Amino acid sequence: MATNQMWGGRFEKGNRSDVVAFNASIAFDQRLAKHDLIGSIAHAKMLTHTKILSELDGTQIIGGLEKLQEKLMAGKLVFSDTFEDIHMNIEHLLQQEIGDVAGKLHTARSRNDQTATDMHLFMKDEIVTIMSLLDELMEVVVTKAEMNVNTLMAGYTHLQHAQPISYAHYLMAYYEMFTRDRERFQSAYNSADQSPLGAAALAGTTFPIDREYSAQALHFAGNYQNSIDAVSDRDYLLDFLHASATLMMHLSRFCEEIIQWNSYEFGYIEISDEFATGSSIMPQKKNPDVAELIRGKTGRVYGSLFSLLTTLKGLPLAYDKDLQEDKEGVFDTIDTLKACVSLFTDMLASIQVKSDKLQASLKDDFSNATELADYLADKGLPFRQAHQVVGKLVHYGIANNVPLQKMSLTQLQEFEPLIADDVYDVLDPENAVARRISLGSTGFDQVKYQIKQAKETLTQK
Amino acid sequence: MATNQMWGGRFEKGNRSDVVAFNASIAFDQRLAKHDLIGSIAHAKMLTHTKILSELDGTQIIGGLEKLQEKLMAGKLVFSDTFEDIHMNIEHLLQQEIGDVAGKLHTARSRNDQTATDMHLFMKDEIVTIMSLLDELMEVVVTKAEMNVNTLMAGYTHLQHAQPISYAHYLMAYYEMFTRDRERFQSAYNSADQSPLGAAALAGTTFPIDREYSAQALHFAGNYQNSIDAVSDRDYLLDFLHASATLMMHLSRFCEEIIQWNSYEFGYIEISDEFATGSSIMPQKKNPDVAELIRGKTGRVYGSLFSLLTTLKGLPLAYDKDLQEDKEGVFDTIDTLKACVSLFTDMLASIQVKSDKLQASLKDDFSNATELADYLADKGLPFRQAHQVVGKLVHYGIANNVPLQKMSLTQLQEFEPLIADDVYDVLDPENAVARRISLGSTGFDQVKYQIKQAKETLTQK
Amino acid sequence: MATNQMWGGRFEKGNRSDVVAFNASIAFDQRLAKHDLIGSIAHAKMLTHTKILSELDGTQIIGGLEKLQEKLMAGKLVFSDTFEDIHMNIEHLLQQEIGDVAGKLHTARSRNDQTATDMHLFMKDEIVTIMSLLDELMEVVVTKAEMNVNTLMAGYTHLQHAQPISYAHYLMAYYEMFTRDRERFQSAYNSADQSPLGAAALAGTTFPIDREYSAQALHFAGNYQNSIDAVSDRDYLLDFLHASATLMMHLSRFCEEIIQWNSYEFGYIEISDEFATGSSIMPQKKNPDVAELIRGKTGRVYGSLFSLLTTLKGLPLAYDKDLQEDKEGVFDTIDTLKACVSLFTDMLASIQVKSDKLQASLKDDFSNATELADYLADKGLPFRQAHQVVGKLVHYGIANNVPLQKMSLTQLQEFEPLIADDVYDVLDPENAVARRISLGSTGFDQVKYQIKQAKETLTQK
Amino acid sequence: MATNQMWGGRFEKGNRSDVVAFNASIAFDQRLAKHDLIGSIAHAKMLTHTKILSELDGTQIIGGLEKLQEKLMAGKLVFSDTFEDIHMNIEHLLQQEIGDVAGKLHTARSRNDQTATDMHLFMKDEIVTIMSLLDELMEVVVTKAEMNVNTLMAGYTHLQHAQPISYAHYLMAYYEMFTRDRERFQSAYNSADQSPLGAAALAGTTFPIDREYSAQALHFAGNYQNSIDAVSDRDYLLDFLHASATLMMHLSRFCEEIIQWNSYEFGYIEISDEFATGSSIMPQKKNPDVAELIRGKTGRVYGSLFSLLTTLKGLPLAYDKDLQEDKEGVFDTIDTLKACVSLFTDMLASIQVKSDKLQASLKDDFSNATELADYLADKGLPFRQAHQVVGKLVHYGIANNVPLQKMSLTQLQEFEPLIADDVYDVLDPENAVARRISLGSTGFDQVKYQIKQAKETLTQK
Repeated sequence: MATNQMWGGRFEKGNRSDVVAFNASIAFDQRLAKHDLIGSIAHAKMLTHTKILSELDGTQIIGGLEKLQEKLMAGKLVFSDTFEDIHMNIEHLLQQEIGDVAGKLHTARSRNDQTATDMHLFMKDEIVTIMSLLDELMEVVVTKAEMNVNTLMAGYTHLQHAQPISYAHYLMAYYEMFTRDRERFQSAYNSADQSPLGAAALAGTTFPIDREYSAQALHFAGNYQNSIDAVSDRDYLLDFLHASATLMMHLSRFCEEIIQWNSYEFGYIEISDEFATGSSIMPQKKNPDVAELIRGKTGRVYGSLFSLLTTLKGLPLAYDKDLQEDKEGVFDTIDTLKACVSLFTDMLASIQVKSDKLQASLKDDFSNATELADYLADKGLPFRQAHQVVGKLVHYGIANNVPLQKMSLTQLQEFEPLIADDVYDVLDPENAVARRISLGSTGFDQVKYQIKQAKETLTQK
Repeated sequence: MATNQMWGGRFEKGNRSDVVAFNASIAFDQRLAKHDLIGSIAHAKMLTHTKILSELDGTQIIGGLEKLQEKLMAGKLVFSDTFEDIHMNIEHLLQQEIGDVAGKLHTARSRNDQTATDMHLFMKDEIVTIMSLLDELMEVVVTKAEMNVNTLMAGYTHLQHAQPISYAHYLMAYYEMFTRDRERFQSAYNSADQSPLGAAALAGTTFPIDREYSAQALHFAGNYQNSIDAVSDRDYLLDFLHASATLMMHLSRFCEEIIQWNSYEFGYIEISDEFATGSSIMPQKKNPDVAELIRGKTGRVYGSLFSLLTTLKGLPLAYDKDLQEDKEGVFDTIDTLKACVSLFTDMLASIQVKSDKLQASLKDDFSNATELADYLADKGLPFRQAHQVVGKLVHYGIANNVPLQKMSLTQLQEFEPLIADDVYDVLDPENAVARRISLGSTGFDQVKYQIKQAKETLTQK
Repeated sequence: MATNQMWGGRFEKGNRSDVVAFNASIAFDQRLAKHDLIGSIAHAKMLTHTKILSELDGTQIIGGLEKLQEKLMAGKLVFSDTFEDIHMNIEHLLQQEIGDVAGKLHTARSRNDQTATDMHLFMKDEIVTIMSLLDELMEVVVTKAEMNVNTLMAGYTHLQHAQPISYAHYLMAYYEMFTRDRERFQSAYNSADQSPLGAAALAGTTFPIDREYSAQALHFAGNYQNSIDAVSDRDYLLDFLHASATLMMHLSRFCEEIIQWNSYEFGYIEISDEFATGSSIMPQKKNPDVAELIRGKTGRVYGSLFSLLTTLKGLPLAYDKDLQEDKEGVFDTIDTLKACVSLFTDMLASIQVKSDKLQASLKDDFSNATELADYLADKGLPFRQAHQVVGKLVHYGIANNVPLQKMSLTQLQEFEPLIADDVYDVLDPENAVARRISLGSTGFDQVKYQIKQAKETLTQK
Repeated sequence: MATNQMWGGRFEKGNRSDVVAFNASIAFDQRLAKHDLIGSIAHAKMLTHTKILSELDGTQIIGGLEKLQEKLMAGKLVFSDTFEDIHMNIEHLLQQEIGDVAGKLHTARSRNDQTATDMHLFMKDEIVTIMSLLDELMEVVVTKAEMNVNTLMAGYTHLQHAQPISYAHYLMAYYEMFTRDRERFQSAYNSADQSPLGAAALAGTTFPIDREYSAQALHFAGNYQNSIDAVSDRDYLLDFLHASATLMMHLSRFCEEIIQWNSYEFGYIEISDEFATGSSIMPQKKNPDVAELIRGKTGRVYGSLFSLLTTLKGLPLAYDKDLQEDKEGVFDTIDTLKACVSLFTDMLASIQVKSDKLQASLKDDFSNATELADYLADKGLPFRQAHQVVGKLVHYGIANNVPLQKMSLTQLQEFEPLIADDVYDVLDPENAVARRISLGSTGFDQVKYQIKQAKETLTQK
């Protein structure tokens, strides 16, 4: 049990090996290696630029770090548990590379601002990746919509047939959700886009550093303006987890519908064999596993959001070791999101809609009842009365197993004399969709307009 | 058990009274009365403007709604459980006011887009209120900071004395958090600032409505572009709850510190009697109840966020009754936030800092150890070696009960010959703070600069 | 701003009215009035029994409390915001009733153990109610099952038809869940069944109280053995919320299926008009609102569990004001559970299963594929090979639109010569169910046996 | 893209490799290898016992499985991503070991009941380990308590000094919590102690299996009584996560206090160097990292509970792929708990209490005020009046900087003539503790009694 070489000066005894393992983060934070090197190079350049480091020392250190970068890319950097985190590991590797001058890299910097810098840089890169995966998803949604403007289906409320809509219109609802998701990730990106480098342990430093210089070198939009806040802030991770939880919620809704539509009873879609699996005992099964797993993984992303919120609750300023718990849930969320979004995109692209069956479901489902009520309101009946009349007609229709459009005019007029021969046009599902012309409605022209807008937006990205 | 007059046409039996009570939302959604009337007036104006309603009908309906507004302001509107929600109640009251023409108000509108419109309008108002409460809080923080630039304290990491800092610098860390909170509420406001009116049940309407007209009449920045999305979207509530949870997390950290500082052992502050309570059994107690309650209420706000995320998970489009559960947690969060922010602001304003005791804690706490390490690094010792030397000095100091600044030069030089007479200036806590000149650091000039910036920002609001 | 009469001795200034309102719990803890009186009477009896109170004082106090009980029952007790909680309110009312001797009731007791005692008593009563509602639910499940032993349906995995089962067997799966739920509530009851009375503020008391006496008077199974733990423990509430969250999870699954079965596409059930609602715009709608609301309310119960867990995290011993936040979420959960369980029970009782349609779905769904695989395994083919053969048959059947039982023997034998004439019996769904004889399986005899066991268990309650 | 050999019969195309990776669980469920083999051996024995398998086949299969057990123990089993889960991997390895007869092991079993069986067996073992770690923790608590019966400290409410207590009494409060935790784990164990084996896919099997035989072979207390429930139940995991979350909450409270007591201001304890760490920049720091990390890890365990609750919400029966998400959070929780409990135990054992400083804090903190109030109540003053008098005395004492026990009798009597010379004994903290004789109080004799009881309980385990 030797004392730690980085901070052990005042200690008589070193940590037990199980304590070292418990405190250590190298098992998961080695994922930050790339960004730790980038951050260190920028720090070394700033130290040289401000003459805190001599030109000679600076050149040596930067050269050493660049060699480590090459080794990392080549998969040749080996990290060890005996150095508790990625920063200590890299510092040790640098020392092996260039000798004792490596120690000067830590001038005017603490692990507190160093780890925060790494994480900010890392998050910016990952969020960019996720946003581009979202763009691909939106493109598939729009492409599918474009192919299905004239595919009719029942729009649902309460999982009940409500009104006839265009399948493209249904798809474009998800386009809107994903658009908001992308904005939320952009917000999370902006939250991450502030440099904490230079905050040191919590109070800033007495060295004449130039934070503007390092922030620019690292392509940060700005600097944290308070050094205590810089090392204790985790809002940017919460913003990311919030965006992630909301995106997973949207995907869970979409997946729920895919699973339902894939059932024997709905039978509206065919998922490609590539995205379905079978059963080890039931030879006929074709399971929508990918959709189910994505829906199920919503739980793990929600869980990570609540983990971090819990960990942060009631923590005194500035840095507490509890904050080390900020990483694993975020890493897991990143991996989950990237896999879910990209597989969902390809699965969606692979889905064949059985438009005949979908459209057939509109024949006897009374989803044209609103049309009749609107028709009567249009003829001057107060809407509430119109609604009552149609309710009675539906009740009669169900009892006698005859849809509205199959009733004779005489039958209809018995319920309400205002009904005339033009009612049959109104009751046709296709007309019901076509007649909806209000902004954002399911009318074919509206849907085409929304698709056109979406395509223009996506092209600009 | 009469069937419901609004939708009972196709039903043989009405609901049991306990079912009516279970489905009813009037107990809590009457809070939306004001915004329901505003929304209905705009809808009626649009219907008249587009000639869907005759001028006469429109005038009557708008007149009736305005009368209801007056009665509401005068506290004279009485809502009844027999009408399940605020919309049905108001429609009924309107009918009593102006007769059957009231039924025409529901033309080209469904409860789905109506309730969504109400909630969007309501949230915009409430978020504005919360943002202005945050502004007041930030002003108090800045005022307190301005009074305490020269008040020294120990900055903490791991709840251990780390380095001397300015109390103002500590306060300004919270200013930064609240600034981000305000931005998050602004984002939530923007999310709410889209009009769903005109989406009808889910598919839009066949009436030639003008959604731009109604959106402008209601001061919305824009319209939902997809009618299904318009009635099923709850992202704007999640954004609000996320902003709320993060704000409460920040407050819980501040409260934790107030509670600690108010303890016998810390003893650094005196909370005004106005914000503390006693004990029914222990006459000496002066409890920081307000701070404790705010910290405790973090749980309830986190809970509301998780509630809504859970409710939304896996819901098929478009509207499901589950969505009625979106309101109570949000209402409770609004009330909790308004009370917590405004009481916290006044409590903070009332707190007296015992600066003598705070400063005294820096005398023998070795929080100047970093200064010595930086001093040695400055003299050319690699930082890691400097750290080791100082670690040994601290160990010696603790064992012999003598702080660094009380050691003789000879003693110090035994550990490291580079130490010279100028070291004592370096070890003085006030100098330690003053020498920190980097952007965002605790140095007095930096802190003053940050306060000046903050004041300018607040003035512009 | 007068100082508080109960604890204001050492204070110069009283609380501001908004602080009083913020700290006050009377708005929600008046729900504990009944149990506060019961607890106080037991305390007074104990004080008299141990001669801490004189016989005369004791008689007066108990008499006064009993009068308050009568008034409470008659709805004549009025609580006021000026006394912050139910305990202060009742103490004040007692003083009005019997004068200054009322002050002696507080001997050897603190609000800390008093409020804990009230809550424990209250929870015991409420949990008993919930358990009896669960019993009623289980009875309906069993009754429904008994009526439907021979109703065939497809058992699902991945929302895909898997194997034919008895509808009764499906129902009895929920019986098992509710049985476990009941056990969890019994555990929560046991957690609540310990008396904290006598713990005083946190350290116990110097008065010669008899805790055994009061615990018995209040029908507690035992006493907390550590006074600090007695006032700070909230595990019994977490146990209750855990049991509640798990129950709601079970109900959410059942509701999800009811909502699906109620859809146009499934169409397997008819919910009574009493438990369904219509739409204000779509006259044909018959929405399963009750099932949707119960599913949606899962979120609120999960949220309350998470709220309390958050509030408790990191709280130092013994009592902190944060703990006042333990009540509202629990109260809301109690109300939610009682409404959900009782309405779910009646709704379930009202549901008509369309057994023809349910059974018809087995005709061409290949859910008998496992039967064929088992048949081949029985004839000596390793199961994995059998599975492959049947997989190919299913693929052929789907492509040619012919179910297994409609294929000729020749066709079948082309895929596997082991298949003989006895295969058609095996492929019949009713036989598929009947042949399952293993313990707990869907075989008719097994299901009858499980129903019989359940009925016996329920009778014993 | 070959089709899957276990279930690919009806598929034309196999899965894409990224889909295979997404669906695969082998990366984490290989942790179940040991229990999968145990379960398979018991299944094979049962199949042989019931003559479903021939003696010869049975012997071969069991022999093959036992060889795999040896290889597993020797670290020689290699699992591959090409087989999606641990069950497929082991089936493949068995086939390599013994050839095609391996396929017969899957007779009368599905992966659904197989994976459930593995998980139940695994959980039982892990929970036993955790309970024994809890026993060790409780022993350390009791040992520490025994050493500190006479160590005085201030009991806290609202983090304010409330009343003098024995440090042992404080420690024993945690003993009570851990006792309840252990019971909760016992309940979770009981929930896991039911065998799902034989439920097959969801409906049971047509083979004449003997579930009693297999359950006994696997040391299960009983069998699931409904096959659908057997494969879809995850309550036993929720029970485990609930027990875990509650335990972590308790540890978070204990850790919070250790962190506070370790601060410069409290300074009541010394954590052994073995369990503390230093700072890379501040040489004087000695951070309570282990306590902070445990407190922080509360978040991750809460998160896993909510993950699973979310995943289960609204899932239709019986098995859905979402359920695969049940494992990783549970595995992580097991690892977290084992590390936290065992390190906490050793850290607690290593802590030195500075009893002098602890006791010194009672000299001028007015924590004896309740004593004076009780003293006056004892002399006949109604408690509420006594409280008021003492409140005024405390106020006077604070203003004049004189503790109660330092006031002259004349001074005291000016506030209340009932005060006599015997008051000074009452005001002594040691007497204050000693005089508390009620059950469960902090009185020395009570504390000794509770310790004795605890030791007897622990010995019996």
